[in-house]
Amino acid sequence: MHRIARNRLAAALVVCLALTGSAVSTRAQDSEATTAAKLRDAALKDGWGYRFLEGLTTEIGQRLAGTPAEARAAVWAEKALKAAGFDTVERESFPMTAWLRGEETASVVAPAPQALVVTALGGSVATPKQGVTAEIALFRRYSDLLAAAPQSLAGKIAVVTQRMPRVMDGGAYGAANPIRRKGPSEAAKRGAVAYLLRSLGTDNHRLAHAGATNYEADAPRIPAAALSNPDADQLERLAARGKVTVHLVLTPHSEENARSWTVSAQLNGSARPDEIVLIGAHLDSWDLGTGAIDDGAGDAIVAAAGRLIAQLKTRPKRSLRVVLFGAEEMDYSGPAYAKAHAAEVPHIVLAAESDFGARKIYAWQKPIGSAKTGFVATLADTLTPLEIFLAPQPALRSGDDIAPLRKLGVPVIAMRQNGLDYFDIHHTADDTFDKIDRAELDQNIAAWAAMAYLAAQSDLDFRKLAADAER
Amino acid sequence: MHRIARNRLAAALVVCLALTGSAVSTRAQDSEATTAAKLRDAALKDGWGYRFLEGLTTEIGQRLAGTPAEARAAVWAEKALKAAGFDTVERESFPMTAWLRGEETASVVAPAPQALVVTALGGSVATPKQGVTAEIALFRRYSDLLAAAPQSLAGKIAVVTQRMPRVMDGGAYGAANPIRRKGPSEAAKRGAVAYLLRSLGTDNHRLAHAGATNYEADAPRIPAAALSNPDADQLERLAARGKVTVHLVLTPHSEENARSWTVSAQLNGSARPDEIVLIGAHLDSWDLGTGAIDDGAGDAIVAAAGRLIAQLKTRPKRSLRVVLFGAEEMDYSGPAYAKAHAAEVPHIVLAAESDFGARKIYAWQKPIGSAKTGFVATLADTLTPLEIFLAPQPALRSGDDIAPLRKLGVPVIAMRQNGLDYFDIHHTADDTFDKIDRAELDQNIAAWAAMAYLAAQSDLDFRKLAADAER
Repeated sequence: MHRIARNRLAAALVVCLALTGSAVSTRAQDSEATTAAKLRDAALKDGWGYRFLEGLTTEIGQRLAGTPAEARAAVWAEKALKAAGFDTVERESFPMTAWLRGEETASVVAPAPQALVVTALGGSVATPKQGVTAEIALFRRYSDLLAAAPQSLAGKIAVVTQRMPRVMDGGAYGAANPIRRKGPSEAAKRGAVAYLLRSLGTDNHRLAHAGATNYEADAPRIPAAALSNPDADQLERLAARGKVTVHLVLTPHSEENARSWTVSAQLNGSARPDEIVLIGAHLDSWDLGTGAIDDGAGDAIVAAAGRLIAQLKTRPKRSLRVVLFGAEEMDYSGPAYAKAHAAEVPHIVLAAESDFGARKIYAWQKPIGSAKTGFVATLADTLTPLEIFLAPQPALRSGDDIAPLRKLGVPVIAMRQNGLDYFDIHHTADDTFDKIDRAELDQNIAAWAAMAYLAAQSDLDFRKLAADAER
Repeated sequence: MHRIARNRLAAALVVCLALTGSAVSTRAQDSEATTAAKLRDAALKDGWGYRFLEGLTTEIGQRLAGTPAEARAAVWAEKALKAAGFDTVERESFPMTAWLRGEETASVVAPAPQALVVTALGGSVATPKQGVTAEIALFRRYSDLLAAAPQSLAGKIAVVTQRMPRVMDGGAYGAANPIRRKGPSEAAKRGAVAYLLRSLGTDNHRLAHAGATNYEADAPRIPAAALSNPDADQLERLAARGKVTVHLVLTPHSEENARSWTVSAQLNGSARPDEIVLIGAHLDSWDLGTGAIDDGAGDAIVAAAGRLIAQLKTRPKRSLRVVLFGAEEMDYSGPAYAKAHAAEVPHIVLAAESDFGARKIYAWQKPIGSAKTGFVATLADTLTPLEIFLAPQPALRSGDDIAPLRKLGVPVIAMRQNGLDYFDIHHTADDTFDKIDRAELDQNIAAWAAMAYLAAQSDLDFRKLAADAER
């Protein structure tokens, strides 16, 4: 499949680059289009981003927020960005409470003794050291749990086995998220002593998907973990036969006063350096894999895009800032950045984040209010040879790290990746470098380099366009 | 992919069943062809085998040889076979030394601390409780390890990362087997303190593949484990950068005086009951998954085939024996059976084993010396609608459980399954029921039912034909 994708991409480029060349000269509005096309084409044969990702995932590996591994990654990234030709590189820290995985085992005690594969949800409290053993109450739909009466789960382990559908744009993840984020508190309100959910994942491997949960203030905090998909199937089959008793041991702990790190690198604008185009990704990862698709790929994409622009003879008019956020998986990064950089936020004219893996971009979304601008026309033409189309809807959101900036009035632009297999790997031990297809990663870098350059070179007031459109 | 396979099979059957009907009536040699075709067609809509496999993998789960789980499986299978209408069902035990997995963890200590996914090889000795920590000596080819000088690995952990190719008939497994079976002793002879190999698997998941090893008498016994494929990749990348130190903890132990179980069920022949056609599979499994493709599927195939023949109005001329072997993974089953049933071996006229998963059969191999017989012609015609062709070479071997019988003069017949993804799952935690495609399993049962019936009904002296051909 990778080989076919690579060949198709190559064939399309041979045809389309020729077409673009003539299209650009026909339009011939400006040299920006030519420069953007050159950046795009250079990215496709550059390879720096792929090597960056190989280095990060090999020399650091997992980068759990607030741990020494994440701190090592920040030092590693700072060094790599300094070598990449940015004007300034900064590494700054912020406080957080770290959450550290402990032992995590589960098993069916009766009627058919067997091991289950689970992983604790981020933020979960621990079970007693000897674990909890209880009958399960299994719900095939989350709504059935929500419909359960108060105390109907007293003394039981609640299990939700609703399956998340496989969709290209990842939209099913948002819809399923409450099962993980809110399920533990909803189960606890009904008397449950622990909570298990079918992993929010589309694979069928014996690897559970991690991810953070959020306890509500008015419910007891109960231990919570995700089952691998085959284990959720197994509990469904056993529960269909009668009563099932499960034993669960989780021993995570939290560390107050931990610190996470943000690494940012900037190219100072040649005409209006105080205006900032921000492209970001997150540097932290879950601890089970090595954070290749989530989100080492995003780090590689934005860093490589910035590096290519740094190699131009002249800086774009605006400043371009590459930000590698810390502690995204623990929900700290976006708010921490918006707070620490509050004074700068009014100067961020456009922002975007890459945090959905390393598969090809198939569509992009323009900033709100920019529909009839030369910026959109030129970027659309530049991206067409990469097999990327302009989606009809403008970008309403980008990654989670950007969301707080968006709320503060920063418009966003979005590159939409093929996420069909993203949730096969996301938050599992399988998130490793071998899953990366270099041609697809390079296509991302090509698109981001062109987009970031054109945005930084543009004279458009994206903030005003967005504000006018949203009025 | 499964859906497509299912639809294609269904479409092929619609066309081919009609064709076969006329082919049979044109040939019209005997009613056996008609009965075999009816068995085949009944199997495709029966569903008993699929339910058998669902039950075994759900109600028992893993069935490690010599453990209470394997004993429970034997009781379970005895009950299922009794309910299936066989004339006699027997459950017999034999002595063995059981091997039980303990803790198994590994990590890179330097230069980049990170966890590694490993699983102990069956039969491996334990490390000291605190583990071993040593520099690795990494070999990308097994032959490079064999070429290493005596004592050149002194104090080191030997790591072999040679990759097993993906091939349809599974032939690459035999070629790679010495890396697991003999590697630990070869490394120990050169001074190594422990041994790691890249899993003999074709997947890229963070799940290591179990499997037995065999220590040689003249080498120290060192702890040995398999790395998941992505972890082997990671060690290759780290070793390319310089010295790598690994920490390994394995705490398996052996139990003398354990027992394994063989379960067999027989339909007594209506004309020559002392002549036996034996079809088998193995009931034990590795402990990481639930033994669905290895070899619950084989159990389901031969049991379901036997059950369909039991439903005929009259028994075939010869006896048909279904044998579910114990402790195959630990190398006990075949020899134990041949020894316990030594007096019967001269009466076994033909044998076959299903032990290569649950994908479609694409070819079959006739017994040696039977080329120009009506048995082969009729069976070939019966299997054609299932998209199974007659391979040019006769069957020289069947499964490992049958090998000792083969050496004692029992000819074999072979059904060859598509094994392209067999080694993605084989011996891993991923070997679970969800991997089974019912249409493909049913195709196997259809072929085995037809084959077993025609062999048991045949007047051919397969032993004599084979002996004459091999003279």
